Amino acid sequence: MTARASEFDLIARIHQRAASRGDVVVGIGDDAAILSLPPGRQLVVAMDTLNVGVHFPEDTAPADIGWKSLAVNLSDLAAMAATPTWCTLSLSLPQPDEAWLDGFLDGFLALAASHEVALVGGDTTRGPLSVCVTVHGLVDPRGALLRSGARVGDDVWMTGTLGDAAAALRQWQSHRPIDPALRARLDRPTPRVEAGLALAGIAHACIDVSDGLLADLGHICRASRVGAQIDVDALPASDALIAAFDPPARRELQAAGGDDYELCFTAPKTARLAVQDAMHACEVIATRIGGITADAGKIALRDAAGAEWSPSHAGYVHFEG
Amino acid sequence: MTARASEFDLIARIHQRAASRGDVVVGIGDDAAILSLPPGRQLVVAMDTLNVGVHFPEDTAPADIGWKSLAVNLSDLAAMAATPTWCTLSLSLPQPDEAWLDGFLDGFLALAASHEVALVGGDTTRGPLSVCVTVHGLVDPRGALLRSGARVGDDVWMTGTLGDAAAALRQWQSHRPIDPALRARLDRPTPRVEAGLALAGIAHACIDVSDGLLADLGHICRASRVGAQIDVDALPASDALIAAFDPPARRELQAAGGDDYELCFTAPKTARLAVQDAMHACEVIATRIGGITADAGKIALRDAAGAEWSPSHAGYVHFEG
Repeated sequence: MTARASEFDLIARIHQRAASRGDVVVGIGDDAAILSLPPGRQLVVAMDTLNVGVHFPEDTAPADIGWKSLAVNLSDLAAMAATPTWCTLSLSLPQPDEAWLDGFLDGFLALAASHEVALVGGDTTRGPLSVCVTVHGLVDPRGALLRSGARVGDDVWMTGTLGDAAAALRQWQSHRPIDPALRARLDRPTPRVEAGLALAGIAHACIDVSDGLLADLGHICRASRVGAQIDVDALPASDALIAAFDPPARRELQAAGGDDYELCFTAPKTARLAVQDAMHACEVIATRIGGITADAGKIALRDAAGAEWSPSHAGYVHFEG
Repeated sequence: MTARASEFDLIARIHQRAASRGDVVVGIGDDAAILSLPPGRQLVVAMDTLNVGVHFPEDTAPADIGWKSLAVNLSDLAAMAATPTWCTLSLSLPQPDEAWLDGFLDGFLALAASHEVALVGGDTTRGPLSVCVTVHGLVDPRGALLRSGARVGDDVWMTGTLGDAAAALRQWQSHRPIDPALRARLDRPTPRVEAGLALAGIAHACIDVSDGLLADLGHICRASRVGAQIDVDALPASDALIAAFDPPARRELQAAGGDDYELCFTAPKTARLAVQDAMHACEVIATRIGGITADAGKIALRDAAGAEWSPSHAGYVHFEG
């Protein structure tokens, strides 16, 4: 009884704070939402869950959990070159906690507002802390970026810098003080929505780096039946990462660390200027890190001197409490 | 590492078994799904989570969890008179368990297939057992059924029978043998998709009964700013419920018990024949249980003799382990 009564209280609180959009015919408050799509656009849908103790430490600020749960989903839309429109939220909480919810909504709705995304439905329920978000977006059928479009000879590019989120986790796991700049990358990743949209019509293939560059570039290579050659010394690093980790440790974090939510994309060599212009227009730095090869399924890593390099473990650095 | 490698194994297993549809441009396997909507239709979206120990007992068969997690979502689409099209699934599992997943998919995909719903994305992750589903459907903008459409003088109708799922829970909670027919209603609810579609253009308002008739009819009354008068002796009961519970206990279960996923709808008195014909065409029994009144926010309950009746608790019977 109490839990259920409070579920309605929580939903009312969410409803009260959620902004709407002109294309929301029915939002929160009925059995389902009704949404109106413009003609000539296709619907893009992504869904991701964050669980306490698996995707974030228990003491993470509610606002950061709110931000990140939407950010990781918007990042998937970014990788498809989709314009975000609506989202739904399913929130499991150990007990109804309005203060926690308010903090969560501060982060969630701030990011939603900055991309004009309307929260249109979902549910709240009792259970171990877990946040499931589904995001919807629109795409021009000719402009969607898939994992399967990479071609031999393409350049491989990265937006932003790599390894920061994994570096923050490494510091946390080794009980060292966490550099605030690195921690911000872990807690408040920036979904590269504008960059993804700007790459429509220019890039051949795209993915967001959530599991680590090697794992995610591997997805592009498998889907496109190609290989890649990467210059590990060209991987972009933040000043904070350079200050905190020596080059061997840094390379590991950049190549295999997850949770950066930057875009890895391929584009033809003839499009180098177009890529730079597009990224400049949305104030995102993009770095060429290698090229696509015909050696299907193989990612060859070399340092600046041309020597082969491989990470000490092929996986990813990810929080698992 | 192991957990992550197995996540990809689980996704591959889901991908292999999931059926597609002609309007799925990109399904499982990219950053997001891309879906094509026909012109003139609006998108309908519902999202619901089931958590172990809250929405189902720990020993529930995986196939039943799979069935129910989709059924409760399809039920929301049914209440809007929407045609189901696509769904996404986020599955949290304590450990990657392929046998469990296969059982889960048996139930989930059987129900999906029977409504031609394509599973187009989602994720699997580590965490306490939790199933989050988002369903999508299409609706004719003129045909959607909302909670807010009830008018004074409307009849109030129910599809099927009420109280069976709550009766099974009551038996389970009191450690009595559970009647198989009642248990089937709890574990494998039938979303009234065809009935919802058949009511488009006939019914004024509709909701699916998940929290109990009184709670859910209350949502219609609040949204429509009306009241209702219900004849508790007219509430439809299954043979199994009649056999297992005496009339006083039965009334409680029918009026306040949740998890039936039948449709409660209102329609004008002039539409009685149209309702009966529409329900007959989809082989669903519908029963008139009362009427909509001008007494906003109040649900008056009377028995066949005209005496006032109220449940011993206003809430709902719901599993909370």
